[in-house]
Amino acid sequence: MSFNTFGRMFRYTSWGESHGPALGAVVDGCPPGIALSEADIQPWLDKRRPGTSRFTTQRREPDIVRILSGVFEGRTTGTPISLMIENVDQRSKDYANVAVAYRPGHADYAYDAKYGFRDPRGGGRSSARETAARVAAAAVARGVIPEVRIRAYLTEIGGDVIDRAAHDDAEIDRNPFFCPDPAAAARWEVLVDAARKAGSSLGAVVECVAEGVPAGWGAPLYAKLDGDLAGAMMSINAVKGVEIGDGFAAARLAGEGNADAMRPGPDGRPLFLANHAGGIAGGIATGQPVVVRVALKPTSSILTPVETIDRTGAAAEIATKGRHDPCVGIRAAPVVEAMMALVLADHKLLHRGQIG
Amino acid sequence: MSFNTFGRMFRYTSWGESHGPALGAVVDGCPPGIALSEADIQPWLDKRRPGTSRFTTQRREPDIVRILSGVFEGRTTGTPISLMIENVDQRSKDYANVAVAYRPGHADYAYDAKYGFRDPRGGGRSSARETAARVAAAAVARGVIPEVRIRAYLTEIGGDVIDRAAHDDAEIDRNPFFCPDPAAAARWEVLVDAARKAGSSLGAVVECVAEGVPAGWGAPLYAKLDGDLAGAMMSINAVKGVEIGDGFAAARLAGEGNADAMRPGPDGRPLFLANHAGGIAGGIATGQPVVVRVALKPTSSILTPVETIDRTGAAAEIATKGRHDPCVGIRAAPVVEAMMALVLADHKLLHRGQIG
Amino acid sequence: MSFNTFGRMFRYTSWGESHGPALGAVVDGCPPGIALSEADIQPWLDKRRPGTSRFTTQRREPDIVRILSGVFEGRTTGTPISLMIENVDQRSKDYANVAVAYRPGHADYAYDAKYGFRDPRGGGRSSARETAARVAAAAVARGVIPEVRIRAYLTEIGGDVIDRAAHDDAEIDRNPFFCPDPAAAARWEVLVDAARKAGSSLGAVVECVAEGVPAGWGAPLYAKLDGDLAGAMMSINAVKGVEIGDGFAAARLAGEGNADAMRPGPDGRPLFLANHAGGIAGGIATGQPVVVRVALKPTSSILTPVETIDRTGAAAEIATKGRHDPCVGIRAAPVVEAMMALVLADHKLLHRGQIG
Amino acid sequence: MSFNTFGRMFRYTSWGESHGPALGAVVDGCPPGIALSEADIQPWLDKRRPGTSRFTTQRREPDIVRILSGVFEGRTTGTPISLMIENVDQRSKDYANVAVAYRPGHADYAYDAKYGFRDPRGGGRSSARETAARVAAAAVARGVIPEVRIRAYLTEIGGDVIDRAAHDDAEIDRNPFFCPDPAAAARWEVLVDAARKAGSSLGAVVECVAEGVPAGWGAPLYAKLDGDLAGAMMSINAVKGVEIGDGFAAARLAGEGNADAMRPGPDGRPLFLANHAGGIAGGIATGQPVVVRVALKPTSSILTPVETIDRTGAAAEIATKGRHDPCVGIRAAPVVEAMMALVLADHKLLHRGQIG
Repeated sequence: MSFNTFGRMFRYTSWGESHGPALGAVVDGCPPGIALSEADIQPWLDKRRPGTSRFTTQRREPDIVRILSGVFEGRTTGTPISLMIENVDQRSKDYANVAVAYRPGHADYAYDAKYGFRDPRGGGRSSARETAARVAAAAVARGVIPEVRIRAYLTEIGGDVIDRAAHDDAEIDRNPFFCPDPAAAARWEVLVDAARKAGSSLGAVVECVAEGVPAGWGAPLYAKLDGDLAGAMMSINAVKGVEIGDGFAAARLAGEGNADAMRPGPDGRPLFLANHAGGIAGGIATGQPVVVRVALKPTSSILTPVETIDRTGAAAEIATKGRHDPCVGIRAAPVVEAMMALVLADHKLLHRGQIG
Repeated sequence: MSFNTFGRMFRYTSWGESHGPALGAVVDGCPPGIALSEADIQPWLDKRRPGTSRFTTQRREPDIVRILSGVFEGRTTGTPISLMIENVDQRSKDYANVAVAYRPGHADYAYDAKYGFRDPRGGGRSSARETAARVAAAAVARGVIPEVRIRAYLTEIGGDVIDRAAHDDAEIDRNPFFCPDPAAAARWEVLVDAARKAGSSLGAVVECVAEGVPAGWGAPLYAKLDGDLAGAMMSINAVKGVEIGDGFAAARLAGEGNADAMRPGPDGRPLFLANHAGGIAGGIATGQPVVVRVALKPTSSILTPVETIDRTGAAAEIATKGRHDPCVGIRAAPVVEAMMALVLADHKLLHRGQIG
Repeated sequence: MSFNTFGRMFRYTSWGESHGPALGAVVDGCPPGIALSEADIQPWLDKRRPGTSRFTTQRREPDIVRILSGVFEGRTTGTPISLMIENVDQRSKDYANVAVAYRPGHADYAYDAKYGFRDPRGGGRSSARETAARVAAAAVARGVIPEVRIRAYLTEIGGDVIDRAAHDDAEIDRNPFFCPDPAAAARWEVLVDAARKAGSSLGAVVECVAEGVPAGWGAPLYAKLDGDLAGAMMSINAVKGVEIGDGFAAARLAGEGNADAMRPGPDGRPLFLANHAGGIAGGIATGQPVVVRVALKPTSSILTPVETIDRTGAAAEIATKGRHDPCVGIRAAPVVEAMMALVLADHKLLHRGQIG
Repeated sequence: MSFNTFGRMFRYTSWGESHGPALGAVVDGCPPGIALSEADIQPWLDKRRPGTSRFTTQRREPDIVRILSGVFEGRTTGTPISLMIENVDQRSKDYANVAVAYRPGHADYAYDAKYGFRDPRGGGRSSARETAARVAAAAVARGVIPEVRIRAYLTEIGGDVIDRAAHDDAEIDRNPFFCPDPAAAARWEVLVDAARKAGSSLGAVVECVAEGVPAGWGAPLYAKLDGDLAGAMMSINAVKGVEIGDGFAAARLAGEGNADAMRPGPDGRPLFLANHAGGIAGGIATGQPVVVRVALKPTSSILTPVETIDRTGAAAEIATKGRHDPCVGIRAAPVVEAMMALVLADHKLLHRGQIG
């Protein structure tokens, strides 16, 4: 893992800014012989794409991916797979004042403090547009782990929580919120509309479950499956918290309440009677579903003016008028899913390398 | 970051099992010329040491560290620093039945699923004893970042939360719980005693604050300061959740409530009016205090028998009688502090390398 | 360093095949604020470009580079720099029989043995066309090390060696052989012409000197400056040997003859009386010129039929008719220079990171 | 690969100085279930041990290795294997004047230029004593690649070359020079004795052959098997040149003379008619023997006084009186073998990880 590279055996390097000509990812270490074409990647990008409902930014990006290398006659060759997505709708004028005053909650000031200056157009490199590269790379990763089924969904927007009893996977793709509870989805429509019209924004919680991960993937200490997932999720824009299994709730349990008891199961494998651990023990998968939850802060770009300073250090005030997601958490769901796929593909290859 | 190595520029490799002859860490990339002797490391190990109060495991380990390389005439030479701690009190007999039945909540089953077999004595490599290596390595890291002051403390045991208004840093070292609120410490004494006597266990929340981190440390995307902290913290035994700044609470805020407004401050630096972000924006430090919070599950070793299976797959029942911490969260505080120091030292050197 | 990534702090990831739509490199870790435009990169690509004389392959590639990210208003931003070069002259028909019979000396058989199949067009990923990505990345690296002057030149083609006494740096760019000795250049013209007309090929030796490398760059043991240079040079197509300083000749010297004696020099720095060591001791630069020499085998593609087998394992015979360099060593000179620049830029940042 | 870590999947981190209390290596990524005890490592250390004949340094080190972790009941557990060797015969007094005047050819000046100061006792970290850690780690690596047979031997001392026709593997262990030609061994006895008595030193060439490496190990471009071998070999003390297969001689061949023609062989695998390539094409093993050759300079420590400077920059003269190998190339043979084993073990696991 380097500044812009993620993974050990299955790795990708991401590049590109919000308002540059293009962005992309170079995937390295992908096994050979996996069926892959643009058509395998595009649907995942379409799920993350902006402008598909009134609840996301109105920037119009088709997000068409091109495979520039690493595939021959429809199969991966084992050599680097270069994926490129051209930027089409870069309206830089919206960002004119951004170049002057720092937007609180954004990376503006921190980037200037680090690099001395930055590309201010649309957040430059710190824009969530970079997540398109992740989703494209993850589409390749999915081909490496056909045994795994991953789904991410929102459990909470602005503090309004789903009813777990009403959870129905089939609902997730039927509403613009990746919400598994149709009643919650209906409430969120009102909630997000109100925030959008007020020029305000809302936070959210995304949960992600991976089924089919065999016991044994993962590794000790500094390549723990949960450690890698935590790092991966926290690297997504606007994420401020990560939980595995019961997460913070586990801190309030006594040992008896947190135990995942085991019974003899089919095929000699254990049957777990609970999954407080979220499918990971000692950094290694137990064969239960892997469960991760991430907290996303509300979009920092809001219409209400906020006190700030400009590059010269002088007092200023800023209200962000550009095109923004009223709730970044919504479009984060496909990205959380992507990071899960990328971490698992990497660990499958690591496990295979060490254990055979 | 590899299986047992942590960091990029300032790195350490950890080794050793709970009941082997010794454990240790090799620190690589440490700048030369830093004053270092065993006396600089020992106090940090003493804080983490077991058996210092009745609220921690009664295993008696002096945890005496030896420096085997990388220091000449009291200063680091820039070459690898090998740190070794001998195990003294390895009572393997307590673990006899552990070799047969899997302890729910422990890594026993997952290790066997991965490696085919394991060193079962005291958890082997998955034992929290490994954290002594981290604390020793972190003592070296502290010499690299003299500008930073780090403190970790518990905010919650078994769901009993401190009163933030009563927070007093000076209290942290005055009670066996690293608790900044003396009233809460008094309550926890009763709480943990009850759990200990009942052979039960409690979860906890540890908060860690680093002051003096200059704006600019950190890096984009896959080497974000918060991403690295999340991965580092989740790599600690029993940790199930990590938050930066407001964490999950931020998911319940609207954009206006989450904004860290800025005013012109002294020395041309901004004066922040809030720190919802926990000192990090876009993966880069803002100059505010860096704030991390971690959730630790209750110790999995409890006296109440739990259903499980043994290595043959047959049904079994297990009650763990060995020496255990009734609340692993207590001894985690020095480890959380250690990981903060290790991540920050690494990022200081990375920043200096790229920016100069 | 990964499959397709080179470097630690200053890193690049290379992608692309000989006959795909494009190839490129993503440079990561480049310091911010360095002046960079396509015009800074193009001249280096032009030096490596095929078809500039009758002594190199007649494939016509303009090798026009585009910067797709990481530069804002003419300066690097510190974020990844994506460089892309489109392939224009991919005449795949020349390679029809290559898909069937393995070309001895090429990677054909080894790739199939590893990956099960491969992109056979023009050597696919194992084509020397990949070196365009290195040269482009190195042009960025040069901006990181303005204090260093690098030049590479041929000292030998087909066993015909230059006269060291006649070495004149100014001659290097005056002939199509990067030859510092005009008399040798004249002889080589005859030699290479004869090989080309006979459908044969010749080996070569390239020497590379870097002046201005300060004492102290480099690192011990597994990041030695000479170790990294050796790995970097051996990664270039057709390279079979690497020497630092006196190289294999040093093995024939006695200790007295190999000593680089020192005298007090200007500015408190030593004045070396010889440079047998090639500017590196213990893996660390001494401040003397860094001297590397690489041996390149003759191009494996020749008109003379050679016995081989095909993918089915059946006996075959192959004579390579495509467009090839009669002496790959010629176009290797700019690539050797590129690898020197890439290694030095990386070590400058590593040194700065650790030492400050 | 970091400053003191070597390898990707099979990695080790080396630590320790010539005159510190101990040195060692931590091996990470080793597969579980491999039989391993100190008795499997000790014989390899004994081959490298100083003082076994009058042709090597008279320092008396038993080089007894201890396994401190990662092995349970005689088998590797998949967790880090910590290996420690105590230093016994550290006669620091011999090195008194070394602390003052820089020894030409040694790393003294370069270390001071980098780090500001150094541990001067016996070369500190730059001493060839570090190679004991490599040999110990390689003994573990050998268990990972039982299908491979590696042997290293000297082909040349002080310019006196073996007769290839007289090569007999059985001779290698019958003389103190790892010489496969008994006649050459007899001549070298005279040669090295003369150098030793004169307080002079001699260079050498070591060749290493690995048989049984399956076609397919290795990887493209920046993890090439030959690139990794070159980097690994150049990281050994006193090495100044590396060749794969024909090496520099290939630069003098025409394409026809360098072709490794293929015929249908047994088991569907090719039968190669030559091995100019040294068993590697495009960075990937072809199934032929892997052949590497390294050049070692003469020991820099000689009795003849050499001009130098001291730490203050003043002129000085130095004659090294300590205990030294008259020809470091001799004891390098087991180290070259070690690096071959380490690189191959790493590539076996990498290949298995990516390809399955």
